[in-house]
Amino acid sequence: MPRPANPLVRENLLTAGLSLFHAQGFNAVGIKEITDTAGVPKGSFYSYYSSKNVFAAAVLGRYWTGIVQDHGTILSEGSLSPVQRIIHFFEALTQDHAEQGFALGCLIGNLALELSHENEEAREELSSIMTRWSALVAACLRAARNEEAVVATPAADELASMLIEAWEGAAMRGRVDRSRAPYDRFLTVSLPRLIGAA
Amino acid sequence: MPRPANPLVRENLLTAGLSLFHAQGFNAVGIKEITDTAGVPKGSFYSYYSSKNVFAAAVLGRYWTGIVQDHGTILSEGSLSPVQRIIHFFEALTQDHAEQGFALGCLIGNLALELSHENEEAREELSSIMTRWSALVAACLRAARNEEAVVATPAADELASMLIEAWEGAAMRGRVDRSRAPYDRFLTVSLPRLIGAA
Repeated sequence: MPRPANPLVRENLLTAGLSLFHAQGFNAVGIKEITDTAGVPKGSFYSYYSSKNVFAAAVLGRYWTGIVQDHGTILSEGSLSPVQRIIHFFEALTQDHAEQGFALGCLIGNLALELSHENEEAREELSSIMTRWSALVAACLRAARNEEAVVATPAADELASMLIEAWEGAAMRGRVDRSRAPYDRFLTVSLPRLIGAA
Repeated sequence: MPRPANPLVRENLLTAGLSLFHAQGFNAVGIKEITDTAGVPKGSFYSYYSSKNVFAAAVLGRYWTGIVQDHGTILSEGSLSPVQRIIHFFEALTQDHAEQGFALGCLIGNLALELSHENEEAREELSSIMTRWSALVAACLRAARNEEAVVATPAADELASMLIEAWEGAAMRGRVDRSRAPYDRFLTVSLPRLIGAA
C-alpha cells in the first residue's frame, strides 16, 4: 500500500530538481542525485512522480510559479505606465540571470530545447507556461494600447509572444557568451522597437 | 601506435552525431550509439576526438558549415535588395525547420541551452558560430544602410545579433508548440520592426 504523500518531501524534491536541472540540465541529472539532494530515499521518488518526465513538468511549473510570485506584481504596478511595467518586468528577469553570472539562462528555455520532442508531459507544460506568460504581458500591452503608447498591431497576445521569444533568444546568447550584452540590447532596442513604443 | 585518421570515418561520425544530437540531444546519446550509427567500432571514436565535448564542438561546426553552404549565398544574391536577402535567408532556415515538422528546432540553440556551462570546448564553438552568423547578416545590414533602407542604429553587428537572437527564440517556441506561428511572426513583424525597414 503506498504511504500517504508528504508535502514536505514533494517540496524538497521540487526544490532539488529545479536547482539541479537548472545547473546541469535534465538528462545529466539522475533520480538518485535528485533524491540525495532532497534528502529522501531514492525509492520514494516514484511515490510522488510516475516518471522523470512527469517530474520535469512539475519542476517547470514550480519555476514559473516562482517567477510570477517574485515579479508578477510588477506587471500590475499602478504607479508605473504599462510600458514601464513591461520594461521593469524583463529587467527583473535579467537581474535573476545576472545573479547566476548569466551562466544558467532560463530554465524554461533550457528545457524547451533540451527535452526530447517525445517528452509530451513536459512539452505540454512548457506550451502552457508560454501561453500564460504571453497572457500576463499581453494584459499590460492592452493597457498601453488604451493609452496609445504602443502600436496597435499585431494582436496583444502575438506581440507579447514576440517579446518573450526575443527575450528567450537573448538569454540563450547571454548564456553562450556569459554576457549581459544580449539582455541589454533586448531591453534598450529590441523591446521598444517590437512594441513600437511612442 | 594510433592508426592514421581516415577522413571517411571522421565524416561518418560527424554525420551520425549531427543527426542524433539534433533528434535526441547531447546527453541522451551515448558514444556507442554514435559509432553504431556511423558504422565504426566504438573504440575508434577516441582516435578522432579526445572527448564527447570536443566532438560536440566539431558537430556544431559541421552544422554551421552546412547552413552556410545551403543558404549563405542568399545573403550576397545581387538580384535581391539587402533587406530581401535577409528575409529570404531566414525564410530558408524556416523551411529547413518545417521539413522536421518544427519538432527539432535549431541544433545551435538546442546545444547552447542543453550543454553544461562547464563544457568549454562547445561553448567556445557556439560563441564563435554566433559571431560568424552575426557578421554574415551584418554585412547585408550595412549594404541596406548604404541604401538607407534600414535604421542607422545600433551598430550592424549588434542589430544582426538582435535578429539572430529573436530568430532563435522563435525556433524555441516553435519547437515547444510544434508550430510555424512563431517563425511567421518573426518574419513578418519582428524582423522588419527590429531593422526599421523603410
